[in-house]
Amino acid sequence: MQYGWSWHLEWQYPCEFHGHLIDRVIEDIKTSYQRIMVAELTRFGKTLIIDGKIQSSVFDEFIYHETLVHPLLLSIKNPKNVLILGGGEGATLREVLRHKLVTESVMVDIDQSVIDFAKKYLQEWHKGSFDDPRSKIIISDAYNFFDNNNDNYDAIILDLTDPILGNTSYKLYTKEFYEKLKKHINVGGGMVTQATSPSFNTDTFTTIYNTLKHIFQYVVTSIVYVPAFDGLWGFVYASDYINPIDLSKEDIDKKIKERINGELRFYDGETHHTIFSIPKYIRQEMIKQNKISTESNPTYIPA
Amino acid sequence: MQYGWSWHLEWQYPCEFHGHLIDRVIEDIKTSYQRIMVAELTRFGKTLIIDGKIQSSVFDEFIYHETLVHPLLLSIKNPKNVLILGGGEGATLREVLRHKLVTESVMVDIDQSVIDFAKKYLQEWHKGSFDDPRSKIIISDAYNFFDNNNDNYDAIILDLTDPILGNTSYKLYTKEFYEKLKKHINVGGGMVTQATSPSFNTDTFTTIYNTLKHIFQYVVTSIVYVPAFDGLWGFVYASDYINPIDLSKEDIDKKIKERINGELRFYDGETHHTIFSIPKYIRQEMIKQNKISTESNPTYIPA
Amino acid sequence: MQYGWSWHLEWQYPCEFHGHLIDRVIEDIKTSYQRIMVAELTRFGKTLIIDGKIQSSVFDEFIYHETLVHPLLLSIKNPKNVLILGGGEGATLREVLRHKLVTESVMVDIDQSVIDFAKKYLQEWHKGSFDDPRSKIIISDAYNFFDNNNDNYDAIILDLTDPILGNTSYKLYTKEFYEKLKKHINVGGGMVTQATSPSFNTDTFTTIYNTLKHIFQYVVTSIVYVPAFDGLWGFVYASDYINPIDLSKEDIDKKIKERINGELRFYDGETHHTIFSIPKYIRQEMIKQNKISTESNPTYIPA
Amino acid sequence: MQYGWSWHLEWQYPCEFHGHLIDRVIEDIKTSYQRIMVAELTRFGKTLIIDGKIQSSVFDEFIYHETLVHPLLLSIKNPKNVLILGGGEGATLREVLRHKLVTESVMVDIDQSVIDFAKKYLQEWHKGSFDDPRSKIIISDAYNFFDNNNDNYDAIILDLTDPILGNTSYKLYTKEFYEKLKKHINVGGGMVTQATSPSFNTDTFTTIYNTLKHIFQYVVTSIVYVPAFDGLWGFVYASDYINPIDLSKEDIDKKIKERINGELRFYDGETHHTIFSIPKYIRQEMIKQNKISTESNPTYIPA
Repeated sequence: MQYGWSWHLEWQYPCEFHGHLIDRVIEDIKTSYQRIMVAELTRFGKTLIIDGKIQSSVFDEFIYHETLVHPLLLSIKNPKNVLILGGGEGATLREVLRHKLVTESVMVDIDQSVIDFAKKYLQEWHKGSFDDPRSKIIISDAYNFFDNNNDNYDAIILDLTDPILGNTSYKLYTKEFYEKLKKHINVGGGMVTQATSPSFNTDTFTTIYNTLKHIFQYVVTSIVYVPAFDGLWGFVYASDYINPIDLSKEDIDKKIKERINGELRFYDGETHHTIFSIPKYIRQEMIKQNKISTESNPTYIPA
Repeated sequence: MQYGWSWHLEWQYPCEFHGHLIDRVIEDIKTSYQRIMVAELTRFGKTLIIDGKIQSSVFDEFIYHETLVHPLLLSIKNPKNVLILGGGEGATLREVLRHKLVTESVMVDIDQSVIDFAKKYLQEWHKGSFDDPRSKIIISDAYNFFDNNNDNYDAIILDLTDPILGNTSYKLYTKEFYEKLKKHINVGGGMVTQATSPSFNTDTFTTIYNTLKHIFQYVVTSIVYVPAFDGLWGFVYASDYINPIDLSKEDIDKKIKERINGELRFYDGETHHTIFSIPKYIRQEMIKQNKISTESNPTYIPA
Repeated sequence: MQYGWSWHLEWQYPCEFHGHLIDRVIEDIKTSYQRIMVAELTRFGKTLIIDGKIQSSVFDEFIYHETLVHPLLLSIKNPKNVLILGGGEGATLREVLRHKLVTESVMVDIDQSVIDFAKKYLQEWHKGSFDDPRSKIIISDAYNFFDNNNDNYDAIILDLTDPILGNTSYKLYTKEFYEKLKKHINVGGGMVTQATSPSFNTDTFTTIYNTLKHIFQYVVTSIVYVPAFDGLWGFVYASDYINPIDLSKEDIDKKIKERINGELRFYDGETHHTIFSIPKYIRQEMIKQNKISTESNPTYIPA
Repeated sequence: MQYGWSWHLEWQYPCEFHGHLIDRVIEDIKTSYQRIMVAELTRFGKTLIIDGKIQSSVFDEFIYHETLVHPLLLSIKNPKNVLILGGGEGATLREVLRHKLVTESVMVDIDQSVIDFAKKYLQEWHKGSFDDPRSKIIISDAYNFFDNNNDNYDAIILDLTDPILGNTSYKLYTKEFYEKLKKHINVGGGMVTQATSPSFNTDTFTTIYNTLKHIFQYVVTSIVYVPAFDGLWGFVYASDYINPIDLSKEDIDKKIKERINGELRFYDGETHHTIFSIPKYIRQEMIKQNKISTESNPTYIPA
């Protein structure tokens, strides 16, 4: 066959989709929550697709996961205790554990079967992190997690699915949730959340930023281009104490060397400039929008 | 997700393809010969796809398999011994075994792993036929099968993959092979072959017909519409003794009742008229073409 | 470019679509009723597409138009006056005018701009028929046409757009409309309507058949495979006086010779058998369904 | 119709394509060189597509054209004479003419019919620039342009089609051509070229950079994300006198204010940081590659 026949079509809108050729479907199952596929894409290699959305690929997952984890942890003086909400693949956990200063990393995911699935199929992502002695895996709804928990953390990392209309994850992007969460951040610490795509969902991206700005003193966004996401992806970092953009190019390169095991593939001092400067047309879109996400008026992406 | 995201795109030409939504990929493996996928298609249910071509679906495989088997067997006075070349799914075998007169059905397939695969995943096709006491499964290259075999058969059924450029199955559609095969047909018997699509490959369809006409006295074609094949599909029946079109509507309905176990879903006296009358524009295309397929100048379909 | 880039995707269902490569878009306009595109498709040549549905292509429009017109007109002893409702391309008119016995052909279409469009872009379809002295073009809503009209016709041909949810054309497929229409058929005459696809819309196809059976004495269906429609297409013929299936193969070939100018490409005695015999599985679907289409409970196809 | 049916599929590789819904095809013609389509895309509005590749859309052409023109012109002390090779749409010319210091802008395009086409259909791009008294349009092959020309320029802007296998534009990306071109740059001046996609064609992007580095003293790259190009796009700036990255954020904002008419939408001091810092993984790819493009061993993209 000259023409590819097994395809993942990812729809950004009803008027836009991207076609990725599939070399082989490794697993394709339906859990009570979602349809989970692991497939070999011709371009991106092994890729995790949940309900039709590429979650990450071995080809470029490092862009997302390094940007999520390292600017925050390097900004914090001594990040010992880290909490991850979501992050089922185990790659966020993997990046956190590369930090020599980290002594405990707690990961909270709603579904044991996702962890089991990751252990079985996503070795390239977690690289054994679930079995690291510093790791602690808790099966719980992230939304209720803080209700019965008095622990505080130096860094809290929100590696959640998008707030999609009809799902419940939208609650984890609201003012109410961030207020609850903030009480569990140690002095000197901070948080970060993935913040959807500034290309496809400028409104939601901006609303997440606005909502955090309402609650924290220092709030900044980074934007990266992720090939497998077919566009730009955004993150928001928030803290009352530290700000990633205060770090100079030289600071970052020095701290990476001192604090992180192994070599990073995406993030360094030079990259830092790229991701923390926002192109003018996105800045101007963001200025127009001043919505805040609340439980009664949440932000979300069309299903 | 409102829009489907997991698709099988089947290309008829570089300028034409059909998209089928996949609910779930059940299995997707590469053997040394081919890529085999079993998937649940939204429209057609469980479907076998080999190297990007739909082989058959539970929704409409009966159209293909009944047309391949019954017109030939009902034309033969007493079809006791039947030989099937190919037919890995086991559905042709299933239809043959419904004939009460059949005492032995030999099936020759090149690859044991295809039979094993069918046993594991394609129960709806074979319905246990492989274990019928009248069945005999032989793993062999169909092309060499007659070299060491002195058996004769009342009916020989060629349920082969298409003659595709680059494959070796094209040899099973040549004058040389048909001549070899003919010597193994009992007096009173006949043969049938699937003959590709008269819609998409009129030339190949016609060449198969011409080639058989060169060798046998009575040669006729039938054409059926198979939804999962996205167009018309052709068959050629050949014999020196019998001709399916000599049977009247009443003959067919009577013989079906007498000879076949269970109820047919596609073929009966009325359907007979539909499939053995060829529309004028296809007849006129066929008249223009007088090529014969030989080993040195075979017919095949572009890969 | 090795891969085609300009495509018409025709959706049969949300889970099924066919892609046709476009060599050139000749015209693409929006009228107050619809979006009309004329494009050169690589496979089918010049093609008329309205609101995303292929109406007909130069490659195979003869299959549809010959099947619509000739079985009815050849069954009628002396078809002099013919009424066409719809048929904007002018190809139905063209086929009617090939009948030497026809002295007047009235065509009723709702939209002058469609006629003008056809005159400008669809010469291959109408071939000048609009200017034939026997033609009479009336711009009117077909639904109201009979209210102010006392003329009767030997044959009435309904070449209408599908009854689609949200459109008003569904009224032209109801018991009420057929009853009105019947009063305008001369003794010895009959009618025919296109009846959607028995592959994709078995229910609607059957309902149209049932509805006409309720009103006329002789009602039969024909089914043809139209490549550009990507499946089977159905027609229903109805009359109190004549029945197309009463004609033998020889009758048809003789009448074609006597009555029709030029050579037909699809329809002849042999083809007749193909199209008036319905495959068993469609017959069995039709038996299950006994709905009749009325204005208060009409049949239609999802938009 | 709920699902879109008229699509532009843009192939990045045989295993990757992006589908853009078309609301209306405005014009679709074949010249002796290429197929040119102007269409309204649902997401990007009016878009120019040549031989299946989106050239630019009204939605985001400003990203490409501002990045091509302004970093170079703002780096040059007094850019009076500007030469544009290619740039048929007229948008590069438009951006050049916004510079108050520019007194003459010469545009060289191979095909008068492209200019005529742009004048007729692409008003949103050129905004009348072709008629500006400072514009001079020359129809000539860019490759031969310098042979009979003794003029020098403060800035030379290469707004060319990609070097595609089989085309001749690859000559405009070689050492030989750049050497010829360099002789026509005034003291204090520089050049810029579009440099294909660092996402999809890292090799070609890097080779263009390497080739220019071989010839000029200061050579830098910028990378921008262009939604309609479905990925990153690269540019290379080269000069013996000036270097865009020497300008500080404040310099840029000040010079934009002083020198450019109207407001820019993409480029400013902040954006400058984003586009001139290259992500680590692209830098590391670039280091691996040291090919130089020459006429006998040119770089190009697969057709």
